[in-house]
Amino acid sequence: MPETVEIGLGRSARRGFHLGEIALVPTRRTRGSAMVSTAWQMDAHSFDLPFVAAPSDAVVSPGTAAEIERLGGLAVLDGEGLWTRYEDAAVELDRLDSETTDLQRVYAAPVVPELLRARIKELRAGGGRVAVRLSPQHTAELAPHALAEGVDLLVIQGTVISAEHVLAEDVPGLNLKTFIADLDVPVLVGGVSNYQTALHLMRTGAAGVIIGYGAHLGSTTHSVLGIDVPMATALIDAAAARRDYLDETGGRYVHLVAYGDLATGGDIAKALACGADAVMLGEPLAVASDAPGRGRYWDATAAHPRVPRSRVTELAFDGDDERRPTLEELLLGPTADPSGERNLFGAVRRVMGKCGYSTLKEFQKAELIVTGER
Amino acid sequence: MPETVEIGLGRSARRGFHLGEIALVPTRRTRGSAMVSTAWQMDAHSFDLPFVAAPSDAVVSPGTAAEIERLGGLAVLDGEGLWTRYEDAAVELDRLDSETTDLQRVYAAPVVPELLRARIKELRAGGGRVAVRLSPQHTAELAPHALAEGVDLLVIQGTVISAEHVLAEDVPGLNLKTFIADLDVPVLVGGVSNYQTALHLMRTGAAGVIIGYGAHLGSTTHSVLGIDVPMATALIDAAAARRDYLDETGGRYVHLVAYGDLATGGDIAKALACGADAVMLGEPLAVASDAPGRGRYWDATAAHPRVPRSRVTELAFDGDDERRPTLEELLLGPTADPSGERNLFGAVRRVMGKCGYSTLKEFQKAELIVTGER
Amino acid sequence: MPETVEIGLGRSARRGFHLGEIALVPTRRTRGSAMVSTAWQMDAHSFDLPFVAAPSDAVVSPGTAAEIERLGGLAVLDGEGLWTRYEDAAVELDRLDSETTDLQRVYAAPVVPELLRARIKELRAGGGRVAVRLSPQHTAELAPHALAEGVDLLVIQGTVISAEHVLAEDVPGLNLKTFIADLDVPVLVGGVSNYQTALHLMRTGAAGVIIGYGAHLGSTTHSVLGIDVPMATALIDAAAARRDYLDETGGRYVHLVAYGDLATGGDIAKALACGADAVMLGEPLAVASDAPGRGRYWDATAAHPRVPRSRVTELAFDGDDERRPTLEELLLGPTADPSGERNLFGAVRRVMGKCGYSTLKEFQKAELIVTGER
Amino acid sequence: MPETVEIGLGRSARRGFHLGEIALVPTRRTRGSAMVSTAWQMDAHSFDLPFVAAPSDAVVSPGTAAEIERLGGLAVLDGEGLWTRYEDAAVELDRLDSETTDLQRVYAAPVVPELLRARIKELRAGGGRVAVRLSPQHTAELAPHALAEGVDLLVIQGTVISAEHVLAEDVPGLNLKTFIADLDVPVLVGGVSNYQTALHLMRTGAAGVIIGYGAHLGSTTHSVLGIDVPMATALIDAAAARRDYLDETGGRYVHLVAYGDLATGGDIAKALACGADAVMLGEPLAVASDAPGRGRYWDATAAHPRVPRSRVTELAFDGDDERRPTLEELLLGPTADPSGERNLFGAVRRVMGKCGYSTLKEFQKAELIVTGER
Repeated sequence: MPETVEIGLGRSARRGFHLGEIALVPTRRTRGSAMVSTAWQMDAHSFDLPFVAAPSDAVVSPGTAAEIERLGGLAVLDGEGLWTRYEDAAVELDRLDSETTDLQRVYAAPVVPELLRARIKELRAGGGRVAVRLSPQHTAELAPHALAEGVDLLVIQGTVISAEHVLAEDVPGLNLKTFIADLDVPVLVGGVSNYQTALHLMRTGAAGVIIGYGAHLGSTTHSVLGIDVPMATALIDAAAARRDYLDETGGRYVHLVAYGDLATGGDIAKALACGADAVMLGEPLAVASDAPGRGRYWDATAAHPRVPRSRVTELAFDGDDERRPTLEELLLGPTADPSGERNLFGAVRRVMGKCGYSTLKEFQKAELIVTGER
Repeated sequence: MPETVEIGLGRSARRGFHLGEIALVPTRRTRGSAMVSTAWQMDAHSFDLPFVAAPSDAVVSPGTAAEIERLGGLAVLDGEGLWTRYEDAAVELDRLDSETTDLQRVYAAPVVPELLRARIKELRAGGGRVAVRLSPQHTAELAPHALAEGVDLLVIQGTVISAEHVLAEDVPGLNLKTFIADLDVPVLVGGVSNYQTALHLMRTGAAGVIIGYGAHLGSTTHSVLGIDVPMATALIDAAAARRDYLDETGGRYVHLVAYGDLATGGDIAKALACGADAVMLGEPLAVASDAPGRGRYWDATAAHPRVPRSRVTELAFDGDDERRPTLEELLLGPTADPSGERNLFGAVRRVMGKCGYSTLKEFQKAELIVTGER
Repeated sequence: MPETVEIGLGRSARRGFHLGEIALVPTRRTRGSAMVSTAWQMDAHSFDLPFVAAPSDAVVSPGTAAEIERLGGLAVLDGEGLWTRYEDAAVELDRLDSETTDLQRVYAAPVVPELLRARIKELRAGGGRVAVRLSPQHTAELAPHALAEGVDLLVIQGTVISAEHVLAEDVPGLNLKTFIADLDVPVLVGGVSNYQTALHLMRTGAAGVIIGYGAHLGSTTHSVLGIDVPMATALIDAAAARRDYLDETGGRYVHLVAYGDLATGGDIAKALACGADAVMLGEPLAVASDAPGRGRYWDATAAHPRVPRSRVTELAFDGDDERRPTLEELLLGPTADPSGERNLFGAVRRVMGKCGYSTLKEFQKAELIVTGER
Repeated sequence: MPETVEIGLGRSARRGFHLGEIALVPTRRTRGSAMVSTAWQMDAHSFDLPFVAAPSDAVVSPGTAAEIERLGGLAVLDGEGLWTRYEDAAVELDRLDSETTDLQRVYAAPVVPELLRARIKELRAGGGRVAVRLSPQHTAELAPHALAEGVDLLVIQGTVISAEHVLAEDVPGLNLKTFIADLDVPVLVGGVSNYQTALHLMRTGAAGVIIGYGAHLGSTTHSVLGIDVPMATALIDAAAARRDYLDETGGRYVHLVAYGDLATGGDIAKALACGADAVMLGEPLAVASDAPGRGRYWDATAAHPRVPRSRVTELAFDGDDERRPTLEELLLGPTADPSGERNLFGAVRRVMGKCGYSTLKEFQKAELIVTGER
């Protein structure tokens, strides 16, 4: 029975936990780093790191995608971002100031299907795997273009998504089940924050489900909409859905990708220990000197034309590319920065060893403790 | 059984929850905005938005009342505010500085019944519905004047109100039951924060009960009096009273109007999901360029001659009317501000859809989760 | 059964609540101020306000004692403070800077029994009731002098006190039971923070027990010693001890005086609702223009020669006596300050009425609610 | 049964408590300071204070070790710190700036076994007991040198340690059980944060187990690795392991040394009351004018070449040695500083008396209370 509290007469609610409220507990055994593997395999694709770069124009460009692949992860290009709206996206990135009004203006330009095709060609030419994100609203229109060029992974992602979107009385929106059944490439769908929606999305045939909507320092979804994702609870609930779906299908394993409230190696480790197979990272990478955001971070919610739900975050070292770390230092280290925000997966490897685990799958069973304020 | 904790030997207390401690949980279905209605109907009156503008002189003047009606809500003029104390209230608003002492001075002038009548005429001439707030202490004296001019809704409102006010040994104060029974117009009464008082006020025949006393950034009632309203719990409790009263009367439905701790679209959505039929908004609207408060907010508690219980809040953009949003942007958008404090009902409409609900009444059953600190 | 949590394997602890964690809940009835009495009677002494001024040299001097009596409370002079160490204490108050080292120097001068006698004469000459505080360590030596001059109330007070103080193996310290039995004047003893110690002190024959050690903004006892007093829980526990002692003695009622974490009218109201018969106030009064502290507050723990446990607090308006409120404004109002820190008992009277209670004894049964962060 | 909460479907976690979340509760008896002993005896070694100085180069040098012994505690020199890497460590301490990069550079020099031997000779010449810390990774290599010179206590310490360290498939690391069995000197091992690991380390024959990894103001282990030590819970759990091991062995008592989150006398007292036999102090002593850190504090985790996990903390009075307290004031007082950070054991002695206890062993049973925010 889930933990509930009565928040008023006759009305109960569960208590959800953020990653910041829990910590990992070591076991009686420790392992050296040489014993630890962070390898992640999804369908035919294997990765050295359990890591997907978020479809933010501040992080993933055709250029950074190749570097992210080289470092062991998978980059997802936003199929409805600047690169598919502008021939020369770099010019727009240079001109962009940090006001939401300016983002709204820049993102008001239409997505050009031919540009989408061209970007996918560029990605493939870079040598890495090709992953593109589309919104549920535009998947029907744009996916054929993407698929025609050949993508390795399709990401269908919005803030809150469901397997059953109703546009008007008895007029269904995108039918994910039919859509995915017809595809040859694996699909990642999300974001999701609860058991039931996760289970229904697993039943669409998705290869993976994204948990969370990418909450970061500048996110205001909690204020704007009153929706929040206590990530530890959401991941554990989705892991329960994965278990039940595994049983229901006699063995189909759906991957969970945590997206949101991930700033440090410790946050990533805790997400994995809550059941995530991999993490999707946006803001933590935007500070990189080789990231396209020029020291700023934003995601698609910041550019919404009527109800924006995040701010552009100005990260440290803005302008001074010399002092910003490389993607390699951020992901694999070494680093002299003790904040936990660099050498993210070097830290993950170490904590797995200190807790006594060799593989990510074992690490999903790590003991957790709820902690209070010091 | 309500959730209680023993706070000392032999003494228990319930745990009350503020709106900031809970969040909405989406369901397995989502709906497009076209499928969502925010319509609110109380007695013979219907509104596009579930929204009442608070009787604060910083928000509602005879002039703004018409604009608020146009935008889909209901404006309540303070029948004991500046507009009924001064012939030329605008002059006083101009002269007002931000000190409580100054408010005390300005509000020391007596309420003039003839001015009350004149303001009601003005409101009616503006074309919208006429709603006036009176304090329980002065209702007996002033209500006849208001009723003679013809109001559509009477609001009897104090910080803490009850159905049974005792002035001296066996000397009852205003008898709300008798008073309301004799009226032809619907009456809103409050503020209230618990089940029992809400139920007793419902039994007076009131059309609606106001939950809370309008806690805002400058409120100090918690410090001055030690009284607090955990809004989520208070609304859920009052909804239980509404349910019991519905049963007791075989069908009389009393509306709940949430008043306090409402700054963003998310706050409003959560209040509705806790059982509110509508919200009363003061401070969130005072920043509007067309609000009479000149970039400041205060309510009646700030002007109390002996024990003031709130401060005058200086809102952003003070003085610079160019940069302040209009009431329309605040209520209906669009906006480029991601704080959640603008396009309040555009956000409400979206979260209702994202959670899978079409009407406010359905949305009152939305799932809630208690969340901790990130 | 008290609420406990297991904080580690095989070890449980109760959860204690501070006044700031609870709030008052109104009932279905409200009362006008004319219906409310704040009168307090202890033994033969009656007071308009349930209030004792703390034995701090920053608050109580022979001069302010008379004013406090006039306003309805009882002033306690520190029998081991500056007034009994120096012929001309005012000179020392003028010279004092805000360093603890300076306090240690000034309080290193010995207490002069003849000065103690002289101060009591002064107090009596002022026309009010005479109350003097002694520490448990020096009661045996100094009390005879105080009693010889005739005091109305003796206060025996330390940070933590017990009925059974052991100085060395089988060498008891002051035997409170024998000492109090021999006295004709009522005795207040404390500070205490739990049921058992409170009960044992009640059995010494004390007229009242002080709950808490006067925690204020500058207190560091929690850091220095690791001892804390969750005031709401401590008062409720002591009220249980009072009830049990009342039963055990067939009717002797011992008064509870709350001391600590009281800054506003709301804090005082909550303490009374938790079972306090009166409150002891130090810091809230030190800001008064007629207080001897010159805009600073300290208590005896700040002057400890080896382990000081509080800082000198610099209050607002320092130096500018014109802008500091009078004791009368602080205690009885009126005020234009909405912080809750002025017109303390005007606020208490109002909240008693808003909650529907006429007397302090009834108000001790008021409903409480535990609240979280907004 | 331990207190657990369900943090997601089918997954429970215990709630761990930090020292800052609990407080001590006095009993019905108090004792004078003359009745209180803070004596600590471990194996053949007895100490006036239950206190070990942490193996930080900012705190323990061959010079300060003698002073710490004189004051009643035990100093542990870092066998892999500056003193064993450099002939003239003082020169390096002078040159060190506060950047982690600089620490990494300085600590990149190799440990020189001959220097380790020379430092131990120096320590012994100082007249006090000799204790040296080695990391689990280098114990096999360096311990023979240390033991050849004769140490009184060996400390084997890392952030997270276990009795079963695995370097590669079936290749065990240091076998603590065999290693310790062969030694004549008592061994302290840690850090540990849970029952099971503590029990397994006790079974290695260790004289004492260190609880915690020395969390201090600059620690970022929680962010970097996601591991945290709720000290109150960790100590109570380890005390349960001590009890079970005592039973299992028919009487071998293993000492618990708390290390981390200890800044004040109150923190130390609470750690002792949770079951610690002694505390290991680093940062609280680094401010001393006679500490080698020149007003800065760091521990070994700050110098990690790839994943540093703490910052160099700049303490107050930097540079101004005149105003910094001596180790004697910090440990034994007297002091004029009311922060709780000085006269640490004077405070411990007082709180033991105020709670009615005479010895440390009795004080381990003191009543605790969980407290919230004021």
